Amino acid sequence: MSENAGTIPASLPLRNDLIGEEPYGAPQLDVPVCLNVNENPYAPRQDVVDSIARRVAEIAPTLNRYPDREHVELREAFVRYLERESGAKLSVDNVWGANGSNEIMLQLFMAFGGPGRTALSADPTYSMYPEYARDTFTGWQLAHRNADFTIDMAALKEQIATIRPAMVILTSPNNPTGTPLDMAELRDILEFCETVDVANAGEGVHPVVVIDEAYIEFRDPGTPSAVTLIGDHDHLAVSRTMSKAFAFAGARVGYVAASPGIVDCMRIVRMPYHLSAVTQAAALAAFDHTDEQLAEVDHLRRTREETADWLRKQTYAGQPLEVAPSQSNFLLFGGHFDKRDEIFAEMLSRGVLIRVVGPAGWLRVCMGTDDEMARFREALVESMRAVES
Amino acid sequence: MSENAGTIPASLPLRNDLIGEEPYGAPQLDVPVCLNVNENPYAPRQDVVDSIARRVAEIAPTLNRYPDREHVELREAFVRYLERESGAKLSVDNVWGANGSNEIMLQLFMAFGGPGRTALSADPTYSMYPEYARDTFTGWQLAHRNADFTIDMAALKEQIATIRPAMVILTSPNNPTGTPLDMAELRDILEFCETVDVANAGEGVHPVVVIDEAYIEFRDPGTPSAVTLIGDHDHLAVSRTMSKAFAFAGARVGYVAASPGIVDCMRIVRMPYHLSAVTQAAALAAFDHTDEQLAEVDHLRRTREETADWLRKQTYAGQPLEVAPSQSNFLLFGGHFDKRDEIFAEMLSRGVLIRVVGPAGWLRVCMGTDDEMARFREALVESMRAVES
Repeated sequence: MSENAGTIPASLPLRNDLIGEEPYGAPQLDVPVCLNVNENPYAPRQDVVDSIARRVAEIAPTLNRYPDREHVELREAFVRYLERESGAKLSVDNVWGANGSNEIMLQLFMAFGGPGRTALSADPTYSMYPEYARDTFTGWQLAHRNADFTIDMAALKEQIATIRPAMVILTSPNNPTGTPLDMAELRDILEFCETVDVANAGEGVHPVVVIDEAYIEFRDPGTPSAVTLIGDHDHLAVSRTMSKAFAFAGARVGYVAASPGIVDCMRIVRMPYHLSAVTQAAALAAFDHTDEQLAEVDHLRRTREETADWLRKQTYAGQPLEVAPSQSNFLLFGGHFDKRDEIFAEMLSRGVLIRVVGPAGWLRVCMGTDDEMARFREALVESMRAVES
Repeated sequence: MSENAGTIPASLPLRNDLIGEEPYGAPQLDVPVCLNVNENPYAPRQDVVDSIARRVAEIAPTLNRYPDREHVELREAFVRYLERESGAKLSVDNVWGANGSNEIMLQLFMAFGGPGRTALSADPTYSMYPEYARDTFTGWQLAHRNADFTIDMAALKEQIATIRPAMVILTSPNNPTGTPLDMAELRDILEFCETVDVANAGEGVHPVVVIDEAYIEFRDPGTPSAVTLIGDHDHLAVSRTMSKAFAFAGARVGYVAASPGIVDCMRIVRMPYHLSAVTQAAALAAFDHTDEQLAEVDHLRRTREETADWLRKQTYAGQPLEVAPSQSNFLLFGGHFDKRDEIFAEMLSRGVLIRVVGPAGWLRVCMGTDDEMARFREALVESMRAVES
């Protein structure tokens, strides 16, 4: 089914700025090898499946009642997980869940954005952010990253000082480039923001710095997470998700770690009972099996390194492929694809779905199983040859 | 845990118009008799519980993958249910689901509202509507209902003509009064709106009429639903939920029935993958047991009539209680409670949680089990006597 099965009559009062817009999202195609939406390709194991069914069966007799609006038990699980994963010692008041980190980001934009407010990010970055801004009437500005996709600190600070944004949004590892944010730079940004007054807000109101760590579990061992800075910075919000490394995209559970004040701001704009009892139960079951859910992360990290090495040995139009150094489960590669749409289409015709995203000349692939990566490599070589000729 | 566990520092860039606001929602208290949020008090039966666990177990091995963004199978279930429940013949393009009708309403406000746009409703009505308006920067206006809580058609039309709202929102049965919307009046409103141009929109752009039918299954047999008018009116959207009669509040499933054009507008602003695979599976399982889920609706309707009769025989301050005629699972009663907060508190101290809502002088109670209603009656008599003295 097409996402725009109907047409929108001109008589409907669709917001003027939405006229002609399309729903956001990668195509959902029935293709043998899907490497386009950065999922963990390894399915939950049978004991995890059994636990999910058991937890859901336990709460199902109460489904005539509304869920715990504060989802306290699940927030306790977020706290335990973040300590285990990143060493951060947080309390329930520091965390908050939602239906995917999409909803976390929307709540942040609803609380801190709006007309007269601006969110600033560093380009290239996640293509969904401008949609949150548009949906909440928040201004959207970009500071450009360096050629190697690291943050251009001088440019970013200049933009922060000029724009005085309500929110500074940085993605680490960045999507679609895989670039991690340096922790010293993050501290620098946080301290700089504490000297900046937000436009269209009272005096002494400073930007919130949102670090989107959707892919953080794929970083190299020893690299810290921004959640370790929350105790020191009341204006830091770190978005996390169970959709990527945690292999739980279908359950739609995102969460934020932040100061209690930021959580309280989000609570004002959250829909009441936004997180279902079924979602809470399923997520708790998955957290009971954290080891199993993350079991393939090491392997996917190795796959990323092997795939990056392999890609760098390939050529297109006589030049070796570039590969952005990635600490995520995907690779941005190419750099000089003059016909990336054609390469994408050739690969799709071979049953391999990747993503046309990022700066011109690049394509993105996420790490699949060993078999899927073999099919990717074969399809890519054939597709480049087909397009070059 | 308090919903505002922390405090919000003045340095955070909370939207200026949200400063001092509280999270929406009735208190979630651990009380023996909860009659405050209009739930169906009858829990899902064991065979329904088993089906939910089985459906969830079936999809759990795919939870590493994103869900069907278009939730087509669930939309097919909405279509079948609406035909069974209301006789409406709709297609998948006419329906759309979300995490509770809260999210349905938010998507409607995000698509059609915004700065310069206004939503109009008829007071007294559901107290959450102004929050959607506030969250989306949509103007919010009210036409007053008649003293018997029916629509004052002349006043409503005058307001529509003056304000030229993007959305006209009417609740049927109305919350907190239980008043149904007359179908001839709805047709009249729909036709009138087709003559009105929305403010801050192009010429020939007419209001969307949103009918919130959260409680419609409790209406008297033979009363039609607004979904039967969808084929004739492209600007009609009917919001439904599984949370009330369907006894599935904990699963958070709301949906809308509307023209494909309205659904396409909502699709532009929906978060991608907003509806989890677990939610889709649980809802499908519940629809497999529609008879069981609705089994107590007749009984609750009788309870409402018996409770209304009983309430009318009670007195407060020497005057009989008023009861608004209700086609829902709740009753608005009193009318001349000069100390409704005190009566509420007295009832709470007796373990019975009702709701302080609606015009001054009134209280709302939803229909519980026979035992719960016996405790309600006992507590109310005692509480009124305690407050009168």
